[in-house]
Amino acid sequence: MHKLDFKPFDHLITYERALEIVLEHIKPVSKFECLSISDAYGRVLAEEIYAKIDMPPFTRAAMDGYALISSCTKGASKENPKLFKIVGTLYAGEDGSSLSVSQNTCVEVATGAELPSGADAVVRIEDTKRISDTEVLVFVQVNPMTNVSKKGYDKRIGELLFSVGEILDSRKICVLAASGNSRVKVFAKPKIVILPTGDEIVEPEKPLPKGYIYDSSSYMIYAIAIKAGCQPVRMPPVKDSLQEIRDSLIGISKSDCDMIVLIAGSSVGKRDFSADILSEIGELKFRGLRTRPGMPTLFAIVNGKPVISMPGHPVSCFVVANVLLLPALRRLSGVTKYEPIRAKGMLVSEVRTHKDFHSFITVRLEGEKVVPIFRHSDTTSTIGISDGYIEVPIGIDKIDAGTIVEVKLFEC
Amino acid sequence: MHKLDFKPFDHLITYERALEIVLEHIKPVSKFECLSISDAYGRVLAEEIYAKIDMPPFTRAAMDGYALISSCTKGASKENPKLFKIVGTLYAGEDGSSLSVSQNTCVEVATGAELPSGADAVVRIEDTKRISDTEVLVFVQVNPMTNVSKKGYDKRIGELLFSVGEILDSRKICVLAASGNSRVKVFAKPKIVILPTGDEIVEPEKPLPKGYIYDSSSYMIYAIAIKAGCQPVRMPPVKDSLQEIRDSLIGISKSDCDMIVLIAGSSVGKRDFSADILSEIGELKFRGLRTRPGMPTLFAIVNGKPVISMPGHPVSCFVVANVLLLPALRRLSGVTKYEPIRAKGMLVSEVRTHKDFHSFITVRLEGEKVVPIFRHSDTTSTIGISDGYIEVPIGIDKIDAGTIVEVKLFEC
Repeated sequence: MHKLDFKPFDHLITYERALEIVLEHIKPVSKFECLSISDAYGRVLAEEIYAKIDMPPFTRAAMDGYALISSCTKGASKENPKLFKIVGTLYAGEDGSSLSVSQNTCVEVATGAELPSGADAVVRIEDTKRISDTEVLVFVQVNPMTNVSKKGYDKRIGELLFSVGEILDSRKICVLAASGNSRVKVFAKPKIVILPTGDEIVEPEKPLPKGYIYDSSSYMIYAIAIKAGCQPVRMPPVKDSLQEIRDSLIGISKSDCDMIVLIAGSSVGKRDFSADILSEIGELKFRGLRTRPGMPTLFAIVNGKPVISMPGHPVSCFVVANVLLLPALRRLSGVTKYEPIRAKGMLVSEVRTHKDFHSFITVRLEGEKVVPIFRHSDTTSTIGISDGYIEVPIGIDKIDAGTIVEVKLFEC
Repeated sequence: MHKLDFKPFDHLITYERALEIVLEHIKPVSKFECLSISDAYGRVLAEEIYAKIDMPPFTRAAMDGYALISSCTKGASKENPKLFKIVGTLYAGEDGSSLSVSQNTCVEVATGAELPSGADAVVRIEDTKRISDTEVLVFVQVNPMTNVSKKGYDKRIGELLFSVGEILDSRKICVLAASGNSRVKVFAKPKIVILPTGDEIVEPEKPLPKGYIYDSSSYMIYAIAIKAGCQPVRMPPVKDSLQEIRDSLIGISKSDCDMIVLIAGSSVGKRDFSADILSEIGELKFRGLRTRPGMPTLFAIVNGKPVISMPGHPVSCFVVANVLLLPALRRLSGVTKYEPIRAKGMLVSEVRTHKDFHSFITVRLEGEKVVPIFRHSDTTSTIGISDGYIEVPIGIDKIDAGTIVEVKLFEC
């Protein structure tokens, strides 16, 4: 009779230390691409970005109205309007220096038009009355720069706009374009190889033999890697054979990938199996986290490549993917600062945890209510409705219903 | 001398009504794709998804330990252990019916293994002591189903998992795989054509002539359309010529696109220009929002295609893109329910608005502080650091510093 190798985890480390170790051993990829800003959505900046022009590039009208010398409006009011002679019209896109204003003359301007020579303010159309093609009454007194956007008022040429490690979202792409940056240097997408293992797992397009389950964690990690700006490659599942897993890992570690995510079975025995292989072919940095879920998580370096071995249970795998793998993937993809979005709410029911472990309790947000939804690590379907998690540090074993708690939202 | 056509907006409608009108006129695209779940990340479900198997598919061990008949543990304790004979071992992936337990016999099981015939509970390895290859002492009394995941406990075969209109994120892809769904029907990506217009705009890769600015709003809309799960096409900028814009719009509306986003100049005169064209070649549904920013926003149907005409100023364009265009794009892409993420915080400085308008104040979140960052619609660079906006409805013209406000986060 064969016997399970029931070695307990005896080197558990804290979540904080695990995250530190992982991030210490992961550097941003050193491959880069130069892309048009149209193709750069979601990519990570690999260079500092400076304004290539003054923003705005010239002093311009911020309103439709009349550009004039502000001091000429002194004392103007509804009862005591000032008469100005209109000497021309300027639209956006026209050269302001083609016209000029002097005492008591003005130029009709559209929003965005360059101010004519001599003008230092714009009176809004609403504060005037046109009395002929060439004359307008002004009802208000304006100060210098009223309704005017001064050249460089927003940003000066050469000013730093964005730093290395920022993710290019629609906001930043807009600012890039406005500042004359049409191409950007970004980090190449890290290549992540995902290796599911386990005698019991089957690809979901195949029939399910008795005693087997469908592989789901590798598809989830694949999607999370895309979300994190990586280029994932999913390998077919490997059986729980020391030699097969070892050979696969060695082969993958010699490829051009940047990181390996091993998804292991869930038992203590299997975990030691992975630990043994990773120790043999590489350097095991930690084996086991003092967390729930997530205890059977390993981290190693094999042929210079970081390898995270994830818990096989989908719920545990999903939590570890968010709290440990995602920060690692973001670091690898060049992101300087990674922080989950946080929300606050009131816990609707008591949460009990083990005080020797750092717990991650998956929750759903219902308005301002925080509903714990973790029943059992076997309830895979709860992943689909999890919005985030609350953390219960070591030393605490209970949070009362009614407590205001911080929820870290899953990036999914 | 030419004269600006300074017609004021006189048909402003409320934001709520505008959103209603837009959503009334937009239906999800009626093209579909059938994709492998590996390729479905970020896509929108066009079919209901049911569990194709029981989850878990068989009754299994939730812990490493010994499967047995729970009633045989009656009275077991540290002081009074019960002796069980081990009749075999089951790993995950093995057929449980190949072994069976009877009174005072047990089967060694790894987490995930199918329970052997007759067993109704698992005693954790921690609660036992192995005394020989074939004998183990059990120190605890367990109830039926202790440390057991019952077949179908999570979801039953045929149970509804996800509905039409849900976005497939990593959570849902995991559940799809686990439930035996390897392919899914999703909405095709809507094709969005973006048409920037304006005499004053230049592509950011070109030199900037005097009086001109770089086109940035069209790049921002392009990125937002990607974010919203659409397939954007950006057209080169068109000059402010009634005929050119009309011809371009007619041509685009006859193409296979699903929606058109016109980005117009910012002046009153230009806006009327767009309104005139849209009225002539289609049906103008509204012209002008009682909002700040965003007033010069139009919506029309041209050759059956929805057309949103956006404000030209990047800041206004960005806000309208979030509050009006994004819900429209999500609807078009098949999403049933679109809601921005909300956060709460304390306003650090007073905000003053015009009480006749519904205002969207862009803000940055600094921990629990909400910092208004809108200075002027010309400060394009502030878009890059905006996290979201606060809404100030019509009738209110001031929010005091120190007020707790709700921030709707930009989707960027």
